[in-house]
Amino acid sequence: MDRNLPIGIFDSGVGGLTVYKALHERLPNERFVYLGDTARVPYGTKSLATVERYAVENSRFLAAHGIKLLVVACNTASALALPAIRAAVKVPVIGVIEPGSRAAVDAAQDANIGVIATEATIQSRAYARAITSMRPTGQVFEKACPLFVPLAEEGWADSDVARNVARDYLSEFTNTSLAALVLGCTHYPILRDVIGETVGSNVTLIDSGAATARDVESLLESSALTHDALSLYQERELCDDLDHFYVTDAAERFAKVAERFLGSAPSILEAVEIWGHDELRTH
Amino acid sequence: MDRNLPIGIFDSGVGGLTVYKALHERLPNERFVYLGDTARVPYGTKSLATVERYAVENSRFLAAHGIKLLVVACNTASALALPAIRAAVKVPVIGVIEPGSRAAVDAAQDANIGVIATEATIQSRAYARAITSMRPTGQVFEKACPLFVPLAEEGWADSDVARNVARDYLSEFTNTSLAALVLGCTHYPILRDVIGETVGSNVTLIDSGAATARDVESLLESSALTHDALSLYQERELCDDLDHFYVTDAAERFAKVAERFLGSAPSILEAVEIWGHDELRTH
Repeated sequence: MDRNLPIGIFDSGVGGLTVYKALHERLPNERFVYLGDTARVPYGTKSLATVERYAVENSRFLAAHGIKLLVVACNTASALALPAIRAAVKVPVIGVIEPGSRAAVDAAQDANIGVIATEATIQSRAYARAITSMRPTGQVFEKACPLFVPLAEEGWADSDVARNVARDYLSEFTNTSLAALVLGCTHYPILRDVIGETVGSNVTLIDSGAATARDVESLLESSALTHDALSLYQERELCDDLDHFYVTDAAERFAKVAERFLGSAPSILEAVEIWGHDELRTH
Repeated sequence: MDRNLPIGIFDSGVGGLTVYKALHERLPNERFVYLGDTARVPYGTKSLATVERYAVENSRFLAAHGIKLLVVACNTASALALPAIRAAVKVPVIGVIEPGSRAAVDAAQDANIGVIATEATIQSRAYARAITSMRPTGQVFEKACPLFVPLAEEGWADSDVARNVARDYLSEFTNTSLAALVLGCTHYPILRDVIGETVGSNVTLIDSGAATARDVESLLESSALTHDALSLYQERELCDDLDHFYVTDAAERFAKVAERFLGSAPSILEAVEIWGHDELRTH
Protein backbone atom coordinates (compact mmCIF):
# COMPACT_ATOMS: atom_id res chain seq x y z
CA MET A 1 0.00 0.00 0.00
CA ASP A 2 1.37 3.42 -0.98
CA ARG A 3 1.41 5.57 2.18
CA ASN A 4 1.18 8.72 0.10
CA LEU A 5 -2.22 7.89 -1.39
CA PRO A 6 -5.11 10.04 -0.21
CA ILE A 7 -7.70 9.03 2.38
CA GLY A 8 -11.18 8.40 0.97
CA ILE A 9 -14.26 9.81 2.71
CA PHE A 10 -17.84 9.33 1.68
CA ASP A 11 -21.15 10.62 2.95
CA SER A 12 -24.71 10.64 1.69
CA GLY A 13 -24.23 14.32 0.92
CA VAL A 14 -22.71 17.41 2.38
CA GLY A 15 -22.95 16.50 6.08
CA GLY A 16 -19.72 14.48 6.00
CA LEU A 17 -17.81 17.70 5.49
CA THR A 18 -17.89 18.05 9.28
CA VAL A 19 -15.89 14.79 9.40
CA TYR A 20 -13.60 15.98 6.61
CA LYS A 21 -12.94 19.13 8.63
CA ALA A 22 -12.04 17.14 11.75
CA LEU A 23 -9.73 14.87 9.72
CA HIS A 24 -8.12 17.80 7.98
CA GLU A 25 -7.43 19.57 11.28
CA ARG A 26 -5.93 16.52 12.93
CA LEU A 27 -4.00 15.25 9.90
CA PRO A 28 -2.71 18.29 8.01
CA ASN A 29 -0.17 16.14 6.14
CA GLU A 30 -2.78 13.95 4.52
CA ARG A 31 -4.70 14.49 1.32
CA PHE A 32 -8.40 13.58 1.04
CA VAL A 33 -10.84 12.46 -1.64
CA TYR A 34 -14.43 13.15 -0.65
CA LEU A 35 -17.54 11.73 -2.29
CA GLY A 36 -20.99 13.17 -1.47
CA ASP A 37 -23.81 11.04 -2.89
CA THR A 38 -26.02 14.07 -3.46
CA ALA A 39 -28.09 12.31 -6.16
CA ARG A 40 -29.50 9.93 -3.57
CA VAL A 41 -29.31 11.89 -0.31
CA PRO A 42 -30.72 11.41 2.33
CA TYR A 43 -29.95 7.87 3.52
CA GLY A 44 -31.53 8.21 6.97
CA THR A 45 -35.07 7.42 5.83
CA LYS A 46 -34.11 4.53 3.54
CA SER A 47 -33.98 0.77 4.05
CA LEU A 48 -31.04 -1.46 4.97
CA ALA A 49 -30.82 -2.99 1.46
CA THR A 50 -30.82 0.39 -0.25
CA VAL A 51 -28.30 1.97 2.11
CA GLU A 52 -26.02 -1.05 1.62
CA ARG A 53 -26.26 -0.79 -2.16
CA TYR A 54 -25.50 2.94 -2.20
CA ALA A 55 -22.66 2.57 0.33
CA VAL A 56 -20.98 -0.21 -1.64
CA GLU A 57 -21.20 1.77 -4.90
CA ASN A 58 -19.66 4.80 -3.19
CA SER A 59 -16.88 2.70 -1.63
CA ARG A 60 -15.99 1.04 -4.93
CA PHE A 61 -15.83 4.41 -6.65
CA LEU A 62 -13.36 5.73 -4.07
CA ALA A 63 -11.35 2.49 -4.03
CA ALA A 64 -11.00 2.68 -7.81
CA HIS A 65 -9.71 6.23 -7.40
CA GLY A 66 -6.77 4.94 -5.35
CA ILE A 67 -6.98 5.47 -1.59
CA LYS A 68 -5.10 3.99 1.36
CA LEU A 69 -8.00 4.08 3.83
CA LEU A 70 -11.75 4.63 3.65
CA VAL A 71 -13.68 6.71 6.19
CA VAL A 72 -17.44 6.17 6.15
CA ALA A 73 -18.46 9.62 7.40
CA CYS A 74 -22.17 8.90 7.12
CA ASN A 75 -23.61 7.59 10.39
CA THR A 76 -26.45 5.78 8.62
CA ALA A 77 -24.05 3.96 6.27
CA SER A 78 -21.71 3.22 9.20
CA ALA A 79 -24.60 1.81 11.22
CA LEU A 80 -26.09 -0.32 8.45
CA ALA A 81 -23.47 -1.11 5.83
CA LEU A 82 -19.96 -1.58 7.30
CA PRO A 83 -19.90 -5.39 6.75
CA ALA A 84 -21.02 -4.95 3.11
CA ILE A 85 -18.44 -2.20 2.53
CA ARG A 86 -15.61 -4.21 4.08
CA ALA A 87 -16.52 -7.15 1.84
CA ALA A 88 -16.47 -4.89 -1.24
CA VAL A 89 -13.14 -3.05 -0.91
CA LYS A 90 -9.62 -4.06 0.08
CA VAL A 91 -8.50 -0.99 2.04
CA PRO A 92 -9.08 -0.57 5.80
CA VAL A 93 -12.52 0.91 6.53
CA ILE A 94 -13.36 3.11 9.51
CA GLY A 95 -16.94 4.10 10.34
CA VAL A 96 -18.07 6.77 12.77
CA ILE A 97 -20.18 4.67 15.15
CA GLU A 98 -17.39 2.99 17.07
CA PRO A 99 -15.19 6.08 17.56
CA GLY A 100 -18.25 8.12 18.57
CA SER A 101 -19.38 5.46 21.01
CA ARG A 102 -15.94 5.22 22.58
CA ALA A 103 -15.75 8.99 22.99
CA ALA A 104 -19.16 8.94 24.67
CA VAL A 105 -18.10 6.19 27.07
CA ASP A 106 -14.87 8.07 27.85
CA ALA A 107 -16.92 11.15 28.71
CA ALA A 108 -19.83 9.52 30.53
CA GLN A 109 -18.12 6.52 32.16
CA ASP A 110 -21.00 4.60 33.74
CA ALA A 111 -23.52 7.43 33.59
CA ASN A 112 -26.37 7.59 31.07
CA ILE A 113 -25.67 8.38 27.43
CA GLY A 114 -28.10 9.82 24.89
CA VAL A 115 -27.87 9.25 21.14
CA ILE A 116 -29.59 11.38 18.50
CA ALA A 117 -29.46 10.31 14.85
CA THR A 118 -31.52 9.56 11.75
CA GLU A 119 -34.45 7.14 11.81
CA ALA A 120 -32.40 4.39 10.12
CA THR A 121 -29.45 4.75 12.51
CA ILE A 122 -31.70 4.68 15.57
CA GLN A 123 -33.64 1.69 14.26
CA SER A 124 -30.37 -0.20 13.68
CA ARG A 125 -29.51 0.31 17.40
CA ALA A 126 -25.85 0.40 16.27
CA TYR A 127 -24.82 3.06 18.82
CA ALA A 128 -26.67 1.37 21.69
CA ARG A 129 -25.02 -1.95 20.88
CA ALA A 130 -21.56 -0.43 20.52
CA ILE A 131 -21.84 1.53 23.78
CA THR A 132 -23.24 -1.43 25.70
CA SER A 133 -20.40 -3.64 24.46
CA MET A 134 -17.87 -1.13 25.81
CA ARG A 135 -19.21 -0.89 29.38
CA PRO A 136 -21.32 -3.11 31.55
CA THR A 137 -23.59 -0.51 33.20
CA GLY A 138 -25.32 2.78 32.44
CA GLN A 139 -28.33 3.25 30.22
CA VAL A 140 -28.50 4.43 26.60
CA PHE A 141 -31.42 6.57 25.41
CA GLU A 142 -31.94 6.96 21.67
CA LYS A 143 -34.03 9.43 19.70
CA ALA A 144 -34.44 10.01 15.96
CA CYS A 145 -34.37 13.73 15.06
CA PRO A 146 -35.15 13.75 11.32
CA LEU A 147 -35.84 17.49 10.99
CA PHE A 148 -32.33 18.41 12.13
CA VAL A 149 -30.90 17.48 8.70
CA PRO A 150 -33.00 19.87 6.60
CA LEU A 151 -32.67 22.57 9.27
CA ALA A 152 -28.87 22.32 8.98
CA GLU A 153 -28.86 22.08 5.17
CA GLU A 154 -31.23 24.99 4.69
CA GLY A 155 -29.36 27.35 6.99
CA TRP A 156 -31.78 27.42 9.95
CA ALA A 157 -29.17 26.28 12.51
CA ASP A 158 -29.41 29.48 14.53
CA SER A 159 -33.17 30.11 14.57
CA ASP A 160 -36.16 29.95 16.89
CA VAL A 161 -37.49 27.21 14.65
CA ALA A 162 -34.41 25.08 15.36
CA ARG A 163 -34.73 25.84 19.09
CA ASN A 164 -38.40 24.75 19.10
CA VAL A 165 -37.66 21.57 17.19
CA ALA A 166 -34.74 20.80 19.50
CA ARG A 167 -36.94 21.36 22.57
CA ASP A 168 -39.56 19.00 21.15
CA TYR A 169 -37.12 16.22 20.20
CA LEU A 170 -34.93 16.47 23.28
CA SER A 171 -37.59 16.96 25.96
CA GLU A 172 -37.65 13.23 26.64
CA PHE A 173 -34.05 13.42 27.81
CA THR A 174 -35.02 15.84 30.59
CA ASN A 175 -35.50 13.13 33.21
CA THR A 176 -32.77 10.79 32.08
CA SER A 177 -29.83 12.70 33.66
CA LEU A 178 -27.50 12.26 30.71
CA ALA A 179 -23.77 12.71 31.10
CA ALA A 180 -23.13 12.71 27.34
CA LEU A 181 -25.13 13.06 24.14
CA VAL A 182 -23.83 11.60 20.87
CA LEU A 183 -24.47 13.79 17.81
CA GLY A 184 -25.01 10.68 15.71
CA CYS A 185 -25.49 12.30 12.30
CA THR A 186 -22.90 14.34 10.45
CA HIS A 187 -25.32 17.25 10.13
CA TYR A 188 -25.92 17.63 13.83
CA PRO A 189 -22.64 19.38 14.74
CA ILE A 190 -23.99 22.30 12.68
CA LEU A 191 -26.77 22.56 15.31
CA ARG A 192 -24.37 22.08 18.22
CA ASP A 193 -25.18 25.42 19.89
CA VAL A 194 -28.93 24.91 19.81
CA ILE A 195 -28.64 21.30 20.99
CA GLY A 196 -26.25 22.33 23.78
CA GLU A 197 -28.56 25.09 25.00
CA THR A 198 -31.46 22.66 25.04
CA VAL A 199 -29.87 19.79 26.96
CA GLY A 200 -27.85 22.06 29.26
CA SER A 201 -24.16 22.46 29.96
CA ASN A 202 -23.96 19.36 32.17
CA VAL A 203 -24.26 17.15 29.12
CA THR A 204 -21.08 16.64 27.08
CA LEU A 205 -21.84 16.72 23.35
CA ILE A 206 -19.97 14.03 21.41
CA ASP A 207 -19.06 14.78 17.82
CA SER A 208 -18.10 11.56 16.04
CA GLY A 209 -15.96 13.49 13.55
CA ALA A 210 -13.25 14.43 16.07
CA ALA A 211 -13.27 10.94 17.59
CA THR A 212 -13.04 9.36 14.14
CA ALA A 213 -10.09 11.58 13.22
CA ARG A 214 -8.23 10.31 16.30
CA ASP A 215 -8.91 6.69 15.28
CA VAL A 216 -7.76 7.35 11.73
CA GLU A 217 -4.53 8.85 13.06
CA SER A 218 -3.90 5.78 15.24
CA LEU A 219 -4.59 3.39 12.40
CA LEU A 220 -2.30 5.27 10.00
CA GLU A 221 0.49 5.20 12.56
CA SER A 222 0.10 1.57 13.53
CA SER A 223 -0.08 0.50 9.88
CA ALA A 224 2.83 2.71 8.76
CA LEU A 225 0.49 4.51 6.38
CA THR A 226 1.17 8.09 7.47
CA HIS A 227 2.04 10.37 4.56
CA ASP A 228 5.84 10.63 4.50
CA ALA A 229 6.08 14.18 3.13
CA LEU A 230 5.75 15.44 6.66
CA SER A 231 6.40 19.09 6.07
CA LEU A 232 4.90 19.37 2.61
CA TYR A 233 1.39 20.34 3.55
CA GLN A 234 1.87 22.02 6.90
CA GLU A 235 0.29 25.26 5.82
CA ARG A 236 -2.79 23.72 4.27
CA GLU A 237 -6.20 25.29 4.21
CA LEU A 238 -9.57 23.56 4.19
CA CYS A 239 -10.81 22.71 0.69
CA ASP A 240 -7.53 23.64 -1.01
CA ASP A 241 -6.54 22.00 -4.27
CA LEU A 242 -4.75 19.06 -2.62
CA ASP A 243 -8.17 17.66 -1.69
CA HIS A 244 -10.54 16.43 -4.35
CA PHE A 245 -14.32 16.53 -3.97
CA TYR A 246 -16.82 14.52 -5.98
CA VAL A 247 -20.61 14.69 -5.90
CA THR A 248 -23.14 12.55 -7.71
CA ASP A 249 -25.39 15.53 -8.43
CA ALA A 250 -25.95 19.26 -8.08
CA ALA A 251 -22.37 20.43 -7.50
CA GLU A 252 -23.45 24.05 -7.24
CA ARG A 253 -25.77 23.39 -4.31
CA PHE A 254 -23.03 21.31 -2.63
CA ALA A 255 -20.56 24.18 -2.96
CA LYS A 256 -23.09 26.58 -1.43
CA VAL A 257 -23.81 24.35 1.57
CA ALA A 258 -20.09 23.55 1.94
CA GLU A 259 -19.45 27.26 2.26
CA ARG A 260 -22.04 27.41 5.05
CA PHE A 261 -20.54 24.38 6.84
CA LEU A 262 -16.81 25.04 6.40
CA GLY A 263 -16.51 28.70 5.58
CA SER A 264 -14.99 27.81 2.20
CA ALA A 265 -16.02 25.91 -0.92
CA PRO A 266 -13.94 23.12 -2.52
CA SER A 267 -11.32 24.24 -5.04
CA ILE A 268 -11.73 20.98 -6.96
CA LEU A 269 -15.31 19.76 -7.20
CA GLU A 270 -16.53 17.36 -9.85
CA ALA A 271 -19.91 15.74 -10.59
CA VAL A 272 -19.71 12.01 -11.39
CA GLU A 273 -21.97 9.03 -12.10
CA ILE A 274 -21.28 6.03 -9.92
CA TRP A 275 -24.25 3.72 -10.46
CA GLY A 276 -25.30 1.21 -13.06
CA HIS A 277 -22.04 -0.68 -13.31
CA ASP A 278 -23.12 -3.37 -10.90
CA GLU A 279 -26.40 -3.89 -12.68
CA LEU A 280 -24.44 -4.77 -15.80
CA ARG A 281 -23.38 -7.91 -14.07
CA THR A 282 -26.45 -8.85 -12.09
CA HIS A 283 -29.31 -8.34 -14.58
CA MET B 1 -55.66 1.73 -26.28
CA ASP B 2 -57.69 -0.28 -23.79
CA ARG B 3 -59.95 2.17 -21.93
CA ASN B 4 -60.12 -0.16 -18.94
CA LEU B 5 -56.41 0.01 -18.18
CA PRO B 6 -55.44 1.84 -15.02
CA ILE B 7 -54.09 5.39 -14.86
CA GLY B 8 -50.42 5.62 -13.87
CA ILE B 9 -49.25 8.18 -11.32
CA PHE B 10 -45.71 8.77 -10.15
CA ASP B 11 -44.13 11.00 -7.60
CA SER B 12 -40.72 11.28 -6.00
CA GLY B 13 -42.25 9.79 -2.89
CA VAL B 14 -45.34 9.96 -0.78
CA GLY B 15 -46.39 13.54 -1.59
CA GLY B 16 -48.15 12.52 -4.82
CA LEU B 17 -50.77 10.75 -2.73
CA THR B 18 -52.49 14.15 -2.47
CA VAL B 19 -52.84 14.02 -6.27
CA TYR B 20 -53.96 10.38 -6.14
CA LYS B 21 -56.62 11.40 -3.63
CA ALA B 22 -57.92 14.19 -5.88
CA LEU B 23 -57.99 11.82 -8.89
CA HIS B 24 -59.71 9.12 -6.90
CA GLU B 25 -62.39 11.51 -5.68
CA ARG B 26 -63.10 12.94 -9.13
CA LEU B 27 -62.82 9.63 -11.04
CA PRO B 28 -64.27 6.90 -8.83
CA ASN B 29 -64.63 4.57 -11.83
CA GLU B 30 -60.93 4.52 -12.61
CA ARG B 31 -58.21 2.31 -11.22
CA PHE B 32 -54.77 3.69 -10.41
CA VAL B 33 -51.19 2.45 -10.31
CA TYR B 34 -49.00 4.65 -8.15
CA LEU B 35 -45.20 4.65 -8.04
CA GLY B 36 -43.37 6.52 -5.28
CA ASP B 37 -39.61 6.75 -5.92
CA THR B 38 -38.79 6.57 -2.24
CA ALA B 39 -35.25 5.28 -2.86
CA ARG B 40 -34.29 8.59 -4.46
CA VAL B 41 -36.63 11.11 -2.84
CA PRO B 42 -36.46 14.14 -2.71
CA TYR B 43 -36.17 15.51 -6.26
CA GLY B 44 -36.53 19.17 -5.34
CA THR B 45 -32.87 19.69 -4.49
CA LYS B 46 -31.49 17.74 -7.46
CA SER B 47 -30.31 18.79 -10.92
CA LEU B 48 -32.18 18.82 -14.24
CA ALA B 49 -30.23 15.85 -15.63
CA THR B 50 -30.83 13.73 -12.54
CA VAL B 51 -34.53 14.58 -12.27
CA GLU B 52 -34.95 13.74 -15.97
CA ARG B 53 -33.24 10.39 -15.55
CA TYR B 54 -35.31 9.42 -12.52
CA ALA B 55 -38.56 10.62 -14.13
CA VAL B 56 -37.94 8.65 -17.33
CA GLU B 57 -37.15 5.48 -15.38
CA ASN B 58 -40.34 5.86 -13.35
CA SER B 59 -42.41 6.51 -16.47
CA ARG B 60 -41.04 3.47 -18.29
CA PHE B 61 -41.76 1.29 -15.28
CA LEU B 62 -45.41 2.39 -15.22
CA ALA B 63 -45.77 2.19 -19.01
CA ALA B 64 -44.49 -1.39 -18.91
CA HIS B 65 -47.10 -2.15 -16.28
CA GLY B 66 -49.87 -1.25 -18.77
CA ILE B 67 -51.52 2.13 -18.29
CA LYS B 68 -53.71 4.30 -20.51
CA LEU B 69 -52.50 7.67 -19.23
CA LEU B 70 -49.61 8.92 -17.10
CA VAL B 71 -49.99 11.61 -14.44
CA VAL B 72 -46.72 13.16 -13.28
CA ALA B 73 -47.82 14.10 -9.77
CA CYS B 74 -44.42 15.46 -8.79
CA ASN B 75 -44.15 19.20 -9.42
CA THR B 76 -40.37 19.05 -9.78
CA ALA B 77 -40.56 16.29 -12.41
CA SER B 78 -43.41 18.13 -14.16
CA ALA B 79 -41.40 21.34 -14.21
CA LEU B 80 -38.13 19.80 -15.44
CA ALA B 81 -38.80 16.53 -17.23
CA LEU B 82 -42.08 16.52 -19.21
CA PRO B 83 -40.38 16.65 -22.63
CA ALA B 84 -38.08 13.77 -21.69
CA ILE B 85 -40.99 11.73 -20.31
CA ARG B 86 -43.14 12.33 -23.40
CA ALA B 87 -40.25 11.20 -25.58
CA ALA B 88 -39.88 8.03 -23.52
CA VAL B 89 -43.45 6.67 -23.31
CA LYS B 90 -46.31 6.32 -25.77
CA VAL B 91 -49.29 7.13 -23.53
CA PRO B 92 -50.61 10.65 -23.00
CA VAL B 93 -48.75 12.45 -20.19
CA ILE B 94 -50.24 15.10 -17.90
CA GLY B 95 -48.12 17.09 -15.47
CA VAL B 96 -49.33 19.27 -12.61
CA ILE B 97 -47.81 22.62 -13.65
CA GLU B 98 -50.24 23.54 -16.42
CA PRO B 99 -53.46 22.56 -14.59
CA GLY B 100 -52.26 24.34 -11.45
CA SER B 101 -51.31 27.45 -13.40
CA ARG B 102 -54.68 27.55 -15.16
CA ALA B 103 -56.53 27.19 -11.86
CA ALA B 104 -54.49 30.06 -10.45
CA VAL B 105 -55.26 32.27 -13.45
CA ASP B 106 -58.97 31.37 -13.17
CA ALA B 107 -58.93 32.42 -9.53
CA ALA B 108 -56.73 35.51 -9.78
CA GLN B 109 -57.59 36.81 -13.25
CA ASP B 110 -55.19 39.72 -13.77
CA ALA B 111 -54.22 40.11 -10.12
CA ASN B 112 -50.91 38.96 -8.69
CA ILE B 113 -50.19 35.25 -8.20
CA GLY B 114 -47.72 33.70 -5.79
CA VAL B 115 -46.04 30.32 -6.31
CA ILE B 116 -44.37 28.27 -3.59
CA ALA B 117 -42.48 25.11 -4.54
CA THR B 118 -39.16 23.26 -4.24
CA GLU B 119 -35.86 24.88 -5.14
CA ALA B 120 -35.68 23.01 -8.47
CA THR B 121 -39.24 23.93 -9.49
CA ILE B 122 -38.72 27.61 -8.63
CA GLN B 123 -35.37 27.69 -10.45
CA SER B 124 -37.01 26.21 -13.55
CA ARG B 125 -39.52 29.11 -13.57
CA ALA B 126 -42.03 26.62 -15.03
CA TYR B 127 -45.01 28.06 -13.15
CA ALA B 128 -44.11 31.68 -13.94
CA ARG B 129 -43.74 30.85 -17.62
CA ALA B 130 -47.00 28.88 -17.76
CA ILE B 131 -48.96 31.60 -15.93
CA THR B 132 -47.47 34.39 -18.04
CA SER B 133 -48.33 32.51 -21.24
CA MET B 134 -51.97 32.30 -20.11
CA ARG B 135 -52.52 35.99 -19.38
CA PRO B 136 -50.84 39.16 -20.51
CA THR B 137 -50.79 41.13 -17.24
CA GLY B 138 -50.42 40.58 -13.51
CA GLN B 139 -47.21 39.69 -11.73
CA VAL B 140 -45.97 36.31 -10.51
CA PHE B 141 -43.95 36.05 -7.29
CA GLU B 142 -42.08 32.82 -6.61
CA LYS B 143 -40.52 31.45 -3.44
CA ALA B 144 -38.81 28.15 -2.66
CA CYS B 145 -39.95 26.67 0.68
CA PRO B 146 -37.72 23.61 1.12
CA LEU B 147 -38.50 22.95 4.79
CA PHE B 148 -42.21 22.42 4.08
CA VAL B 149 -41.50 18.93 2.69
CA PRO B 150 -39.85 17.45 5.79
CA LEU B 151 -42.35 19.26 8.04
CA ALA B 152 -45.21 17.52 6.17
CA GLU B 153 -43.46 14.14 6.03
CA GLU B 154 -42.51 14.14 9.69
CA GLY B 155 -45.96 15.07 10.95
CA TRP B 156 -45.29 18.69 11.98
CA ALA B 157 -48.06 20.17 9.79
CA ASP B 158 -50.02 21.53 12.73
CA SER B 159 -47.26 22.95 14.93
CA ASP B 160 -45.78 26.26 16.03
CA VAL B 161 -42.65 25.24 14.19
CA ALA B 162 -44.59 25.03 10.91
CA ARG B 163 -46.24 28.38 11.66
CA ASN B 164 -42.86 30.03 12.28
CA VAL B 165 -41.36 28.55 9.13
CA ALA B 166 -44.41 29.62 7.11
CA ARG B 167 -44.17 33.15 8.50
CA ASP B 168 -40.52 33.33 7.54
CA TYR B 169 -40.96 31.97 4.01
CA LEU B 170 -44.16 33.83 3.20
CA SER B 171 -43.38 37.22 4.74
CA GLU B 172 -42.12 38.48 1.39
CA PHE B 173 -45.61 38.08 -0.04
CA THR B 174 -47.00 40.58 2.50
CA ASN B 175 -46.68 43.59 0.22
CA THR B 176 -47.46 41.86 -3.06
CA SER B 177 -51.28 41.78 -2.65
CA LEU B 178 -51.68 38.26 -3.99
CA ALA B 179 -55.06 37.05 -5.21
CA ALA B 180 -53.95 33.41 -5.40
CA LEU B 181 -51.08 31.29 -4.14
CA VAL B 182 -50.13 28.06 -5.94
CA LEU B 183 -49.16 25.19 -3.62
CA GLY B 184 -46.57 24.04 -6.15
CA CYS B 185 -45.36 20.88 -4.41
CA THR B 186 -47.46 17.83 -3.64
CA HIS B 187 -46.55 18.02 0.03
CA TYR B 188 -47.81 21.52 0.56
CA PRO B 189 -51.57 20.74 0.69
CA ILE B 190 -50.73 18.92 3.94
CA LEU B 191 -49.74 22.35 5.33
CA ARG B 192 -52.75 24.12 3.78
CA ASP B 193 -54.16 25.36 7.12
CA VAL B 194 -50.90 26.87 8.29
CA ILE B 195 -50.18 28.44 4.87
CA GLY B 196 -53.75 29.81 4.70
CA GLU B 197 -53.51 31.37 8.17
CA THR B 198 -50.21 32.97 7.23
CA VAL B 199 -51.17 34.57 3.92
CA GLY B 200 -54.71 35.43 5.03
CA SER B 201 -58.16 34.53 3.78
CA ASN B 202 -58.04 36.96 0.83
CA VAL B 203 -55.58 34.71 -0.95
CA THR B 204 -57.06 31.69 -2.74
CA LEU B 205 -54.87 28.62 -2.27
CA ILE B 206 -54.45 26.58 -5.45
CA ASP B 207 -53.93 22.86 -5.08
CA SER B 208 -52.65 21.43 -8.37
CA GLY B 209 -54.08 18.01 -7.51
CA ALA B 210 -57.72 19.02 -7.90
CA ALA B 211 -56.97 21.00 -11.07
CA THR B 212 -55.02 18.07 -12.51
CA ALA B 213 -57.89 15.68 -11.78
CA ARG B 214 -60.22 17.93 -13.81
CA ASP B 215 -57.77 17.90 -16.73
CA VAL B 216 -57.41 14.13 -16.55
CA GLU B 217 -61.20 13.78 -16.64
CA SER B 218 -61.43 16.01 -19.74
CA LEU B 219 -58.68 14.14 -21.52
CA LEU B 220 -60.21 10.73 -20.78
CA GLU B 221 -63.58 11.92 -22.11
CA SER B 222 -62.21 13.58 -25.24
CA SER B 223 -60.04 10.55 -26.03
CA ALA B 224 -62.80 8.01 -25.28
CA LEU B 225 -60.59 6.50 -22.59
CA THR B 226 -63.07 6.59 -19.70
CA HIS B 227 -63.43 3.24 -17.97
CA ASP B 228 -66.59 1.62 -19.35
CA ALA B 229 -67.60 -0.28 -16.23
CA LEU B 230 -69.34 2.83 -15.05
CA SER B 231 -71.07 1.42 -12.02
CA LEU B 232 -68.46 -1.14 -11.08
CA TYR B 233 -66.43 0.91 -8.67
CA GLN B 234 -68.97 3.48 -7.45
CA GLU B 235 -68.54 2.57 -3.82
CA ARG B 236 -64.79 2.65 -3.82
CA GLU B 237 -62.63 3.68 -0.92
CA LEU B 238 -59.19 5.29 -0.99
CA CYS B 239 -56.34 2.78 -1.12
CA ASP B 240 -58.62 -0.22 -1.69
CA ASP B 241 -57.34 -3.28 -3.52
CA LEU B 242 -58.29 -1.99 -6.99
CA ASP B 243 -55.40 0.45 -6.79
CA HIS B 244 -51.84 -0.78 -6.79
CA PHE B 245 -48.99 1.04 -5.08
CA TYR B 246 -45.31 0.58 -5.76
CA VAL B 247 -42.35 2.12 -3.97
CA THR B 248 -38.66 1.87 -4.77
CA ASP B 249 -37.73 1.60 -1.09
CA ALA B 250 -38.92 1.53 2.53
CA ALA B 251 -42.53 0.40 2.01
CA GLU B 252 -43.21 0.47 5.74
CA ARG B 253 -42.36 4.13 6.07
CA PHE B 254 -44.46 4.92 2.97
CA ALA B 255 -47.46 3.14 4.50
CA LYS B 256 -47.04 5.12 7.72
CA VAL B 257 -46.88 8.49 5.97
CA ALA B 258 -49.74 7.46 3.63
CA GLU B 259 -51.86 6.87 6.68
CA ARG B 260 -51.04 10.39 7.88
CA PHE B 261 -51.83 11.92 4.47
CA LEU B 262 -54.91 9.91 3.45
CA GLY B 263 -56.26 8.42 6.64
CA SER B 264 -55.64 4.93 5.23
CA ALA B 265 -52.69 2.87 4.04
CA PRO B 266 -52.57 1.08 0.66
CA SER B 267 -54.04 -2.44 0.57
CA ILE B 268 -51.57 -3.44 -2.12
CA LEU B 269 -48.09 -2.01 -1.67
CA GLU B 270 -45.00 -3.50 -3.23
CA ALA B 271 -41.30 -2.56 -3.21
CA VAL B 272 -39.64 -2.72 -6.63
CA GLU B 273 -36.31 -1.94 -8.32
CA ILE B 274 -36.61 0.25 -11.39
CA TRP B 275 -33.06 1.34 -12.18
CA GLY B 276 -30.10 -0.12 -13.96
CA HIS B 277 -31.90 -1.30 -17.08
CA ASP B 278 -31.01 1.80 -19.07
CA GLU B 279 -27.37 1.54 -18.15
CA LEU B 280 -27.30 -1.90 -19.72
CA ARG B 281 -27.70 -0.22 -23.05
CA THR B 282 -25.63 2.93 -22.62
CA HIS B 283 -22.47 1.71 -20.88
